[in-house]
Amino acid sequence: MTARADAAAPGRTGADLLCETLLAHGVDHCFANPGTSEMHFVAALDRQPRMRCVLGLAEGVVTGAADGYARMAGRPACTLMHTGPGLANGLANLHNARRAGSPVVNIVGDHATWHLAHDAPLTSDIESLARPMSHWVGRCAAAGAGPGGADNVGTAAAEAVRQARAAPGRIATLILPADLAWGATDAPVPSPLQPPALAAFSAPRPPDAARLAAAARALLQGGKGTLLLLAGHALRAEALEWAAAIAATTGARLLAQQANARVERGRGRVMIDRVPYVVDKALATLAGTRQAVLVGAKAPVGFFAYPGKPSSMLPGGCEVIAAATPEEDGAAALRELAALVGAKREAARDAIAGNAAATGRPEPPRPTGAITSATLAQAVVAVLPEQAIVCDESVSSGRDFFPMSWHAAPHDYLQITGGAIGCGIPLATGAALAAPARKVLALQADGSAMYTLQGLWTQARERLDVVTVILSNRRYAILHGEYAQVGAGAPGANARRLFDLEDPALDWVALARGMGVPGERCETAERLTEVLRAAMHQRGPFLVEAAL
Amino acid sequence: MTARADAAAPGRTGADLLCETLLAHGVDHCFANPGTSEMHFVAALDRQPRMRCVLGLAEGVVTGAADGYARMAGRPACTLMHTGPGLANGLANLHNARRAGSPVVNIVGDHATWHLAHDAPLTSDIESLARPMSHWVGRCAAAGAGPGGADNVGTAAAEAVRQARAAPGRIATLILPADLAWGATDAPVPSPLQPPALAAFSAPRPPDAARLAAAARALLQGGKGTLLLLAGHALRAEALEWAAAIAATTGARLLAQQANARVERGRGRVMIDRVPYVVDKALATLAGTRQAVLVGAKAPVGFFAYPGKPSSMLPGGCEVIAAATPEEDGAAALRELAALVGAKREAARDAIAGNAAATGRPEPPRPTGAITSATLAQAVVAVLPEQAIVCDESVSSGRDFFPMSWHAAPHDYLQITGGAIGCGIPLATGAALAAPARKVLALQADGSAMYTLQGLWTQARERLDVVTVILSNRRYAILHGEYAQVGAGAPGANARRLFDLEDPALDWVALARGMGVPGERCETAERLTEVLRAAMHQRGPFLVEAAL
Repeated sequence: MTARADAAAPGRTGADLLCETLLAHGVDHCFANPGTSEMHFVAALDRQPRMRCVLGLAEGVVTGAADGYARMAGRPACTLMHTGPGLANGLANLHNARRAGSPVVNIVGDHATWHLAHDAPLTSDIESLARPMSHWVGRCAAAGAGPGGADNVGTAAAEAVRQARAAPGRIATLILPADLAWGATDAPVPSPLQPPALAAFSAPRPPDAARLAAAARALLQGGKGTLLLLAGHALRAEALEWAAAIAATTGARLLAQQANARVERGRGRVMIDRVPYVVDKALATLAGTRQAVLVGAKAPVGFFAYPGKPSSMLPGGCEVIAAATPEEDGAAALRELAALVGAKREAARDAIAGNAAATGRPEPPRPTGAITSATLAQAVVAVLPEQAIVCDESVSSGRDFFPMSWHAAPHDYLQITGGAIGCGIPLATGAALAAPARKVLALQADGSAMYTLQGLWTQARERLDVVTVILSNRRYAILHGEYAQVGAGAPGANARRLFDLEDPALDWVALARGMGVPGERCETAERLTEVLRAAMHQRGPFLVEAAL
Repeated sequence: MTARADAAAPGRTGADLLCETLLAHGVDHCFANPGTSEMHFVAALDRQPRMRCVLGLAEGVVTGAADGYARMAGRPACTLMHTGPGLANGLANLHNARRAGSPVVNIVGDHATWHLAHDAPLTSDIESLARPMSHWVGRCAAAGAGPGGADNVGTAAAEAVRQARAAPGRIATLILPADLAWGATDAPVPSPLQPPALAAFSAPRPPDAARLAAAARALLQGGKGTLLLLAGHALRAEALEWAAAIAATTGARLLAQQANARVERGRGRVMIDRVPYVVDKALATLAGTRQAVLVGAKAPVGFFAYPGKPSSMLPGGCEVIAAATPEEDGAAALRELAALVGAKREAARDAIAGNAAATGRPEPPRPTGAITSATLAQAVVAVLPEQAIVCDESVSSGRDFFPMSWHAAPHDYLQITGGAIGCGIPLATGAALAAPARKVLALQADGSAMYTLQGLWTQARERLDVVTVILSNRRYAILHGEYAQVGAGAPGANARRLFDLEDPALDWVALARGMGVPGERCETAERLTEVLRAAMHQRGPFLVEAAL
């Protein structure tokens, strides 16, 4: 073998072209954990101080933060990960981002094109790893280009951003071989995006008139047997008012799908319930539904399958009408549906939290006594500031918060969408970067928190205004429930060893301090409320271990 | 949709058949992080107290521990992971296990077969995720079997174990849909393995006589221009003596490949160097090599590609002869090669550490002053007990240990093999479970440790006899080096934000305490030696933060 002639370019490289293209297309946050094959990309980042580089100490933090950023910023960040194993570590939170409809541009470094044939230790099939969690996978290609093919990197990057920005938001993964990153190029940046396209996703497709008309007919004829099921942008404040007006006018029932990327919620906003997670509750909730009108939502299915229980949560024979698919403009669909059924926005009045005389939901009491799912929710409702962002990966112990949060100050509610645990701390990290003026509150189950606790360090490094509440019940409580649900009886010794986080108990205040985040453990609802209230009035990361 | 008729079996299930098959085939350790789709497997584990269930609080711990277990036990454990995202979290350490030639049987739970079509939130393409890091991927299939297909689970599990046990050790991933786990079956356990097959891997293939003869001719004719390059079982103590005898007899040069699953090392054992990691050093080391005889090794290539540098570390025109492939019996190949070249085992005498009058490697001094790569290595050499297991993911700061470890008590040396960082703590965890009577010492870089620090909790839970030394230099030091190597100049602001772990510094003693592991921070080599010596004389997990 002889030495390669293609030494690193002393001037502008393919990596520079990549950075310039990302910035010109509105991508100016880079969540990263780089390795050797990404060194020229890092060098290019060094020449672009406009790109904010945020280090995650494990790739689950990197991708989960990109998800949280996208949900709040409405546009993609990029990630930078190191070959197949680096990407693999980030896949679980890409799975959640994909289910959330979040736009993300992944840059995955790979060996130089001519090095791949040698099967060096880090070589792997990156495309096979990327595909299940990506809507689009591309590789910067040497073929047909100048020396090293670095000229191609700009068009590949522009295509990756375009793919990510397609409604509702998609995962685009671009593989960047090292020699294309270090090769010389004077190729121009592909035509940059202009405002207003730069500020937000590409416009979703307008809803289909024929489907809207069919949905309107169903709503007008259906009455109480009709479900209006929302997801995506249909869960923002104004769209929700149109949805509530339609429901009030037609007698249809309003629900959000079970897991949602972002809901605008709290006092002054439309009260909406979700399809329950537990299958028997979902079946009971949806019993009697004869037609389901979907706006951005999918027909509800069980999160898991159970012996003797159905996959679909809708009764047999229920008609399903997609008024707007997830790719279509759900907010526009609701405005047009309202016009078609003759609903005035004022009709939403009684569905708005704080307006309704008889919501059947009394103001929550002052939390006292032991910390429970209920008193925790009461404490959060009592202290949440205006325009907070709540990131919910509370799993079993936090289920009382959502129904109670009508009484809280107006806030954005972000939740785990794909069931891949470990999204909460990273999600809060990314949301805080996208909305630095807003308080972020993470409601975080302890078992799930352990998956990506490294994100606390990023919160400290970036001085993010995030309060994390660890719901410390010292077990995968949901598995105790699921074990019972599948009919397996009482857990024995091996099951308890797999479900319980005791022996030893985790000390979350020590873990947080180890990463530079101050914290306190609370054992009563009164103390929890005090500590949370104080945390809301100071800035910077803080952790509360709520002992359940 | 109507309710499914296939309720959970009240009696023996497919999951029971799976557990029984694993045990009958010598798999009695299960590293796990289960979810809802694995509840019936957990119920089956509950009925099999012989199966030792070890919980990892993230899947990187699960798979890395299975790798460490396999390297020391010589037979596979199984893992239990939850659908595609759970597997994804474990892939990086499966990548390392694959490169190590470690046998691992992964059981990945999936939705019930009839639930997959509904695209529930956790649905993903598990096969596509599994394939890059698996030698074999299978799925328990419903087709052609009894109700639910649970009868098929036993043969699928037996095949997975058979695949994993193929030499040198392979990654077998079996996907288990929930309905096949809960379905009833009275199918028998496929013919169990008998001793001695049960105790170890399937026998590797005998080496090929013609290739051995060619290798012997090359060794006899080549002299100093011949390299004898070893990996796998050729690096165990007895095989190394035959290799050293061959080298002494023929004048060939002896080296181990750069990254190795397990080397038997220390006083009384053959001194052997590795191919260096740094490309320029590797090229200089191998300059003048005219023929390379491989025993279990692959021809050496650069870990990464660099501008203007070659992929192969062997000079152009160097002849490569595979005396034994990684699938063949390397120890037998060395014995036969020794006979063919007329080497007596006594000829190894001068290559054995402690025997050689003039090894050119003086006894290391007592470590004093600041903690550096050199004084750290001196401290470890001074305190290491007989038959310890050293797990090395020290990356840049630990490179002085390997050349100095001839002076240490005899030990097994396990290192990161695939370049996917985050293997060290899990590897030590699994090795300790496989060899409970031996002390385990993990030499662990701080940046890599953060990937899978959750493994410390498993060490506390299982009372494992592991001492972890965190090499705390508060940076990805290797990236500083690589940044220089690729010719990118001095790191700027963005690069330093991605390479340095300062602001805030990690407090490793707090992190360890948070997971139930006691620890101490050391700032001088003297104190480090004292603390390490004390830790070697007590049992149970302990962490030392060595401030470099």
